[in-house]
Amino acid sequence: MAFEFQNILANHIPETSRVTPARKGKYDFAVAYPDPVSLPHTEILECLKEALEESGSELAVYPHPQGNTPLRQYIAEKIGRDRDINVSEDEIILGNGSGQPIDMICAVLLNPGDIAITDSFVYGGTLNTLRRHFADIRGVDSDEKGMDPEKLDAVIGEAIKSGRKPKFVYLIATFQNPQGWTIPEDRRKELLAVTQKHGVPILEDDCYADNRYDGDLPTSMANLDDTNSVMYVGSFSKTIAPGMSLGYMTAPKLILDRAMGVKSGRVSEFTAMAVEKYARKYLDSHIEEINSIQRTKRDAMLASLGENFGTSAEWSNPDGGLYIWVKLKEGSDIVALNERSVSEIDVGFHPGTNYSPTGKTGQDHIRLCYGYNEPEDITEGISRLANFLHKEGVLDS
Amino acid sequence: MAFEFQNILANHIPETSRVTPARKGKYDFAVAYPDPVSLPHTEILECLKEALEESGSELAVYPHPQGNTPLRQYIAEKIGRDRDINVSEDEIILGNGSGQPIDMICAVLLNPGDIAITDSFVYGGTLNTLRRHFADIRGVDSDEKGMDPEKLDAVIGEAIKSGRKPKFVYLIATFQNPQGWTIPEDRRKELLAVTQKHGVPILEDDCYADNRYDGDLPTSMANLDDTNSVMYVGSFSKTIAPGMSLGYMTAPKLILDRAMGVKSGRVSEFTAMAVEKYARKYLDSHIEEINSIQRTKRDAMLASLGENFGTSAEWSNPDGGLYIWVKLKEGSDIVALNERSVSEIDVGFHPGTNYSPTGKTGQDHIRLCYGYNEPEDITEGISRLANFLHKEGVLDS
Repeated sequence: MAFEFQNILANHIPETSRVTPARKGKYDFAVAYPDPVSLPHTEILECLKEALEESGSELAVYPHPQGNTPLRQYIAEKIGRDRDINVSEDEIILGNGSGQPIDMICAVLLNPGDIAITDSFVYGGTLNTLRRHFADIRGVDSDEKGMDPEKLDAVIGEAIKSGRKPKFVYLIATFQNPQGWTIPEDRRKELLAVTQKHGVPILEDDCYADNRYDGDLPTSMANLDDTNSVMYVGSFSKTIAPGMSLGYMTAPKLILDRAMGVKSGRVSEFTAMAVEKYARKYLDSHIEEINSIQRTKRDAMLASLGENFGTSAEWSNPDGGLYIWVKLKEGSDIVALNERSVSEIDVGFHPGTNYSPTGKTGQDHIRLCYGYNEPEDITEGISRLANFLHKEGVLDS
Repeated sequence: MAFEFQNILANHIPETSRVTPARKGKYDFAVAYPDPVSLPHTEILECLKEALEESGSELAVYPHPQGNTPLRQYIAEKIGRDRDINVSEDEIILGNGSGQPIDMICAVLLNPGDIAITDSFVYGGTLNTLRRHFADIRGVDSDEKGMDPEKLDAVIGEAIKSGRKPKFVYLIATFQNPQGWTIPEDRRKELLAVTQKHGVPILEDDCYADNRYDGDLPTSMANLDDTNSVMYVGSFSKTIAPGMSLGYMTAPKLILDRAMGVKSGRVSEFTAMAVEKYARKYLDSHIEEINSIQRTKRDAMLASLGENFGTSAEWSNPDGGLYIWVKLKEGSDIVALNERSVSEIDVGFHPGTNYSPTGKTGQDHIRLCYGYNEPEDITEGISRLANFLHKEGVLDS
């Protein structure tokens, strides 16, 4: 008789079962990749070779629990230089992508039922992590400058009145996924004034900061906060490759200590050694290169949207990142069309519901990524999508 | 005023704070490395190059949530061939080392205070993981054939009588860390009869199965179990390098589903691609090579122990793995001598307490690893250690 594991599961274990990744469209506007053609294989191999020659026997020992020390030193220098965050390598913890650090922070702070605040549309990966920790996720609406401070104040105030102060506010303040806006410095300060007033910390996810095509890059929330209430995560997924699975966090000491207490496994030293050498030698120029490519791709998608969607939809005009957020005819149900779009016209996209704390709003929105395809394919894919959506009646005419 | 994170921590968060790795001795018998000299850098680089040429654009996309598919296929083939475990790649989940899979299984099964059973001396990393999940760890004594089935029966029976059935039994059945024994097939069956009688599953940690120098390799517990009650983890840390941080698990479907529900982050595709190509091309012959080297090292350590410790201590004589378990004079306190051994004679070892569920037993035991140093250094280090311990009065004379 087969053993019944069902009877011995821990409480509060998510139902999530394994997911087979969906078929990709030829025109893949669904998943967020950086440009695949410019992946710097040769340089990474060269750097890995150098690193192994210099200190390859490091692979024989277990990596530092916080991850490869030279890479943590590099990250400390980089976020000091680019994001005005001054910490030592001792205050950096590497993780598998930024997903693992975000999960660690959730584990450290969230009891089941605790309130966490996000934008009313935000990165689905973080929403899933919050759900796995049984968070009560409250979305806050935004305008073109990002999360609305008055609305944030109201949502926090209401939660506190009900006796449940939110544990943190999760923010992608720069090149937000999926909405595309960037919070300017004055708005950042207003948001911090609200969270500081209520005593609620911020989890700043800054994973797109390097992917800037236009405009100024505002300083980080972590830098603007003078109360040591901001936890910060970043990643190399959008600057080198998602396949490196390398991200990082920094935070006040207590959070770092406790995060190490819940961390499981160690980040690949093999990957970290390659990334460290590569980053010091090539990353700045590589970022310039991919930003120039991705700027062209963004422009191709914006132009094609203008040509094919005209005034029958509205969309964001991001200064950076990888996403365009499209609002279709009010009340449309795009979820039903998602799979058919791949199978019938070979165009992949994500329905807005993927970015909704409740999973229910956003049925009339789609997220389009412009990182993967070449500009001419972007143009072709958007034209196909417009025709398809027109036929299905979800575009205003 | 600085924000006080202390006030908002989740319940049941381990106190663990960050640990600075200890200074290593020149004669490092403390940490378990495979032989560092034979690390196959050149071959791994060659394989990574090949893999990137073939399918490098895979790095631009997010890895399969369970990890690189070709590597999962390889692992399914390997454990089928070597451990009589027949599963498909769909039933394999990659993790950072075997530590992450063990943590995932703990997360899926353990509520704070739940009972988990281990050997009375066992791998400290797993003990720490169990502690992080606030398990009530019960140790079961062993003889030279491994865990004692009658004692296991008694410990499980007692737990059940108190109304708390143990959630699982954690076993390193082959080349146990630190005790060195391997459970023969008849004993494996006796242990399974006990766990099946009580309805308690087994977590089999098989991470040393490839490191065999003498004797036969018994089939896996997973193969002998006909009730689908064994969860299984393995690792490339002891066959390729700890710095790859690559391990894996297989288990009944429900556990795999739920493990994916608590998994955070994705394993480095970059590392996994290199390991897959390398494993198919070179791993079998590499294992032969390192086993031959490690056999020599083990023999050097055993000879030196005989020469220098004589009858004043007792030690294990393992057929594989990386450890010798030494029993000193009854009632000795080796913990106090641990740091002084590194600073005074440059010899590192781990006190037996590191392997004790309570952290209190094993004060008169030490664990010695023979993977790192060359045979002549092993001989010298053991001689230094014997002199030091003689002087400190912890050897029988």
